[in-house]
Amino acid sequence: MKNLCINIARLKTDIEELGKFGKNAKGGLDRTTFTPSELEAREWLKERLHKLKLAIRIDQAANIWAKRPGQEATLPSISFGSHIDTVPNGGKYDGALGVLIALEVMRVLEESHISTRHPLELVSFSAEEPNPFGLSTFGSRAISGKLKKSDITNVTDSEGTRLVDALRSAGGDPENFEKAVRNPAELSAFLEVHIEQGKRLLNRSIPVGVVTAITGIYREKISVYGEANHAGTTLMEDRKDALTAASEIILSLERVSSAHPSNEVVGTIGKVDVSPNAPNIIPEKIEMILEIRGKSSSEIYEVLKKFDTDLIKIRESRPVQIKRKVILDQTPAPMNELVVKTIQDCAESLNYPSYSLGSMAGHDATHMASLTKSGMLFVPSLDGKSHCPEEESRLEDIEKVANVLLHTILSLDQKLDV
Amino acid sequence: MKNLCINIARLKTDIEELGKFGKNAKGGLDRTTFTPSELEAREWLKERLHKLKLAIRIDQAANIWAKRPGQEATLPSISFGSHIDTVPNGGKYDGALGVLIALEVMRVLEESHISTRHPLELVSFSAEEPNPFGLSTFGSRAISGKLKKSDITNVTDSEGTRLVDALRSAGGDPENFEKAVRNPAELSAFLEVHIEQGKRLLNRSIPVGVVTAITGIYREKISVYGEANHAGTTLMEDRKDALTAASEIILSLERVSSAHPSNEVVGTIGKVDVSPNAPNIIPEKIEMILEIRGKSSSEIYEVLKKFDTDLIKIRESRPVQIKRKVILDQTPAPMNELVVKTIQDCAESLNYPSYSLGSMAGHDATHMASLTKSGMLFVPSLDGKSHCPEEESRLEDIEKVANVLLHTILSLDQKLDV
Repeated sequence: MKNLCINIARLKTDIEELGKFGKNAKGGLDRTTFTPSELEAREWLKERLHKLKLAIRIDQAANIWAKRPGQEATLPSISFGSHIDTVPNGGKYDGALGVLIALEVMRVLEESHISTRHPLELVSFSAEEPNPFGLSTFGSRAISGKLKKSDITNVTDSEGTRLVDALRSAGGDPENFEKAVRNPAELSAFLEVHIEQGKRLLNRSIPVGVVTAITGIYREKISVYGEANHAGTTLMEDRKDALTAASEIILSLERVSSAHPSNEVVGTIGKVDVSPNAPNIIPEKIEMILEIRGKSSSEIYEVLKKFDTDLIKIRESRPVQIKRKVILDQTPAPMNELVVKTIQDCAESLNYPSYSLGSMAGHDATHMASLTKSGMLFVPSLDGKSHCPEEESRLEDIEKVANVLLHTILSLDQKLDV
Repeated sequence: MKNLCINIARLKTDIEELGKFGKNAKGGLDRTTFTPSELEAREWLKERLHKLKLAIRIDQAANIWAKRPGQEATLPSISFGSHIDTVPNGGKYDGALGVLIALEVMRVLEESHISTRHPLELVSFSAEEPNPFGLSTFGSRAISGKLKKSDITNVTDSEGTRLVDALRSAGGDPENFEKAVRNPAELSAFLEVHIEQGKRLLNRSIPVGVVTAITGIYREKISVYGEANHAGTTLMEDRKDALTAASEIILSLERVSSAHPSNEVVGTIGKVDVSPNAPNIIPEKIEMILEIRGKSSSEIYEVLKKFDTDLIKIRESRPVQIKRKVILDQTPAPMNELVVKTIQDCAESLNYPSYSLGSMAGHDATHMASLTKSGMLFVPSLDGKSHCPEEESRLEDIEKVANVLLHTILSLDQKLDV
């Protein structure tokens, strides 16, 4: 059993084949959820699952499930997978790799005639990436009960396409949307392989990343109100400039985030809108989105507390008003200890170096962790790049992580009696 | 002659009547150049000039001229006026007041049967304000030879309307555009009345502003290049954040402008565009327009020099690239000493307090100063407001400034022999 391993040549072919759907002139993939190219990719995947004689099911959220029966009818499923949608001009590894490794695991088990105690379920989640409907990790939120029918009913993209229609085109069922929710009793564990999207593994030359927790994401909308005025006739001392105040806020977040002892806490202001945004008018209003991520809530709140103190000083020293509104407070999701330990042990028994780290990006596993014992494996990203055509992982690393997944599934199958 | 004065009741009616063209639901005026409402306003003005039996001429740049003959055929004209176009949602004083006071001066001279030595020319300049064609002080630049036919040929607004067509609709002649240029020998002097658009007169309770120089305007496009990256997976120390660098630049300009000993030098960044402008992506590129204004070139360059020093430090301390491009370097326009002195003397002989100050906004007089002896008078702006529906000046101040203009014209008519 220890010698069982995945077929990297076959996996390479899969990566290349799936990587053709949505390919654009820049070499990137335009395979946003529910677009024609994403629907084609879904068909490609279903065909391969079909060949393996797996029981395919498309749930109400258009997640693709493929089930392989277990020996013990009473045991719940061990599930594993990721997503195949991409960001605009994305790469062929983010998401897809996790699904293709899951597919390869199913193939190896099938051709090796290995029968597990637990049923196994491959899953390809719908719409994990940010998409024109504004609902990322759509599929995993749907099955964990975090997305309601009312959340999707009136959603359209900027061109007026209704989400419910797009969902239907992928085989979903918006009318019975909440029936997608999985009963925790049906699931024994969940595993997801994903590219790291950072450089921590690469910098350490370690092939296998074991995720200990998935980052919490805290977002605020910060509005700074000054006074629009003529940029020529208004003396410096008479100004109520919203932009200079906003600049102090932006630098404060950078300072307090960098000063935190953990380097796995980060603060970003990535979106800024200036009004009226004219060269000769003093800015009246700035709207910004602040984001803080950390692997624990306490890390996030430590940064936030120092930021709060700075903001009070800025407000006191400048003639502006500042309004803050929390728009997201997603708590960090620790991975299950047993699953983490099993992944670490399997890597060790295969003689692959592994490194435990927090995931700074959100993933479907964040939501699966609220349903079942969950774990994640990271594959090193070359140059740390993701969400771009240059996104790449080495085959030798992919092979190792896929083997760790395979053996983790088999090990958990033995260990878990639920 | 000293008792000659304008009719403020008549002027008030004019302000109210002209203030109806382009009035919007917010109480502001939408009378951008060459729009239907601005064309109506032109007709209204021409009708009134026609009643005064002035010789009306629309030049190739669609400037409206109205000439009153002088006694001495060899003398060039003393001209005066301003503009009647507005910014979007602007007020009824900016520009219009200068034209209406000019109209009132013509009326008083006519009804008082006063004949001047010099011919007098009222002028209403085209497109002084920033407009959808991107060419402000259009009319005064055209007649001073600063705008060429090639500058206007392929210009369109964002909806595709061609400037040459819009110009034709107002009576202009794009084919012979450069014939609009006035020969300096035809002009003896130019005077413009305008609202101050600041609070210096108001704060001192002084009704008459005598402009000594019109601000120079220096503009740069500053581009900051960092690297777009995932806001979760990119550690603070690995970031190349264009926005935090831009924030330091914005604060530097504020600091060096405020520190300058003259309070008539100001620095503004009013336009900022962030790419890709998404909450979870580290900003890759910031484009900003920097503006510095001062009443002398040396003031502007003193500020710029300190800003340069800061920018070098920012560039050295952050992993970003900064590109700078000068897009405007309009030198300050000192007003003619004789004209300034004459305005001051006339105010004094009428017993009106006057205050000499630099104009921090650009005006048509900036360009007229390159053609002829020029001067400007300011009327106090309530609360310093302009370019908004709340823009207002008191009738008692308007009356005084109009009387000073009237007497300045008569005084210059005596003093000038060219």
